[in-house]
Amino acid sequence: MEDFASFIDSIRLNVNKYLKKISIPDTPRYLYDPIRYSIRNGGKRFRPILTHLSGRANNIDSDALMNLSIAVELLHNFTLVHDDIMDNDTIRHGKQTIHEKWDSSTAILAGDGIYTIAQIILNEISSNSVLLSKYFNKTTLEICEGQALDKEFENDHDIDRKMYFDMINKKTGSLLGASAALPIIYNDGSEEQVYIYEQFGRNLGMGFQIHDDLLEITADTETMGKSLGSDIYEGKQTIMVILARESYPDQWRDLLNLSENNELIKNIYNFFEEKNIIQETRSISDAYFKASLNFLKKLDGINTEELVQLVHLIEKRTF
Amino acid sequence: MEDFASFIDSIRLNVNKYLKKISIPDTPRYLYDPIRYSIRNGGKRFRPILTHLSGRANNIDSDALMNLSIAVELLHNFTLVHDDIMDNDTIRHGKQTIHEKWDSSTAILAGDGIYTIAQIILNEISSNSVLLSKYFNKTTLEICEGQALDKEFENDHDIDRKMYFDMINKKTGSLLGASAALPIIYNDGSEEQVYIYEQFGRNLGMGFQIHDDLLEITADTETMGKSLGSDIYEGKQTIMVILARESYPDQWRDLLNLSENNELIKNIYNFFEEKNIIQETRSISDAYFKASLNFLKKLDGINTEELVQLVHLIEKRTF
Repeated sequence: MEDFASFIDSIRLNVNKYLKKISIPDTPRYLYDPIRYSIRNGGKRFRPILTHLSGRANNIDSDALMNLSIAVELLHNFTLVHDDIMDNDTIRHGKQTIHEKWDSSTAILAGDGIYTIAQIILNEISSNSVLLSKYFNKTTLEICEGQALDKEFENDHDIDRKMYFDMINKKTGSLLGASAALPIIYNDGSEEQVYIYEQFGRNLGMGFQIHDDLLEITADTETMGKSLGSDIYEGKQTIMVILARESYPDQWRDLLNLSENNELIKNIYNFFEEKNIIQETRSISDAYFKASLNFLKKLDGINTEELVQLVHLIEKRTF
Repeated sequence: MEDFASFIDSIRLNVNKYLKKISIPDTPRYLYDPIRYSIRNGGKRFRPILTHLSGRANNIDSDALMNLSIAVELLHNFTLVHDDIMDNDTIRHGKQTIHEKWDSSTAILAGDGIYTIAQIILNEISSNSVLLSKYFNKTTLEICEGQALDKEFENDHDIDRKMYFDMINKKTGSLLGASAALPIIYNDGSEEQVYIYEQFGRNLGMGFQIHDDLLEITADTETMGKSLGSDIYEGKQTIMVILARESYPDQWRDLLNLSENNELIKNIYNFFEEKNIIQETRSISDAYFKASLNFLKKLDGINTEELVQLVHLIEKRTF
């Protein structure tokens, strides 16, 4: 496992190296300074890593694979830049978000530019370009739908877990699905193969997101970039909040209404612990990770070892 | 000319009919309500009309042409939705802008969705799809650069006409260039042919934009959707402001500083008249219209009559 972790680090390093090499003009600085800042700002790079591993399992040439993985990462980046404006998030990967460091107009335009650059890089791939572009744009529209649902759900106390799963499937699952499936489309994969990789990625993404909700309540603002308290204040749904509200509606409402500001996070955490909500959440994310592994098992004649290990790495992550 | 005008109206009608037929899902309403509102909100449709005429001159099949023209119009629409946020414009085509009717977050996401739908429609075209997509995205990035320059220029009193022309070439010229050139790319045109159509469109776009600056000072908020006064207050550059500042720096500064609010627009207008700035602007836009016609003359064996008439229609427009 330690070897695998350093193997993943080496892919991340390569992705970062390539991101630095993208030729971004110097001017107009209003457009390109924030773009440069944003795409070199770090990040876990899980999506391009997933693309690399999916491509390696299918012996896809490394140039095309790098382009695919960069397009995926830039698509992710574009959605983060715009989501951060919409969600008033000021910190991302430990650094100021674009709209915080500059302003909203700058961030809107930078996001537009990043998405356009993603497509330009995708179009450099010479095989199956139209199929790739169609799939890429279908994914983007689904991510927009996910973000729309996320915004609709804010402060809506009728959201149940099914609606939440649908939202994160669109907002997070779709892009991890695409990260896994794009190399297969490039490789002339059958519809069924594309479907399997996509479902593998979607389930991994769902597990990843639910696990992320869980990590946020233990992480502080330094490591995660935002705090549980602020999310809950802004009415954001997380799976734990929904489980608490579904199972203990009165107690949960009282807890939110009666806690002192400085005690809120501690009280919420204790409530989740007492009511076994942390454990329940963990078992939901585990089920998604397991479902993702089950899709991999459907792939005959493919060495999925690295993809399996990636799932394990992600389900064990603590930051 | 009257016949031609009603011919153009019939194309506009067709474009609007097709825009209404695009299948936009009902939900999530947060995403799709403002998208529907925006793309059915009217507009002059000059860009898709240009695409249709450029395609007709080359006998391009009408289905592909419609897709190209709709992709172009949606790209335009996307930039308007985001620009309106950045520029605090509250009225567009006589109706509230999205960020005004809903809010900025809604408008950011709607713009993203519209651009994505533009690409999905572009990808439906089966010939030369990659070339079309490359050109389309190159154009989008250039429009972003133009908007970036426009933002950089705000309140900068050192902007000269050369910088201004460069800005509007990117912000407006590039998309009219693309509107004219995309059918030629679809039609396997040579690099030289694509270049000629693009330059024809760019020059038409420059003339169009400069003429637009001119129309704004006579139009009121009902017909143009914004007023000269507010643009100048917000530090926006127009060619007339630049000509006034270049030729009469002291008098122009005094006029802005000493005018009463309710007299400003009238004083500016009188100043432009007295100093022949309106006439000078008109001759600059005329020169661009003429340059666009000269590019058409380079096209041997093509019946450019409709394109020529479109230029005349645009240079004579009064609204």
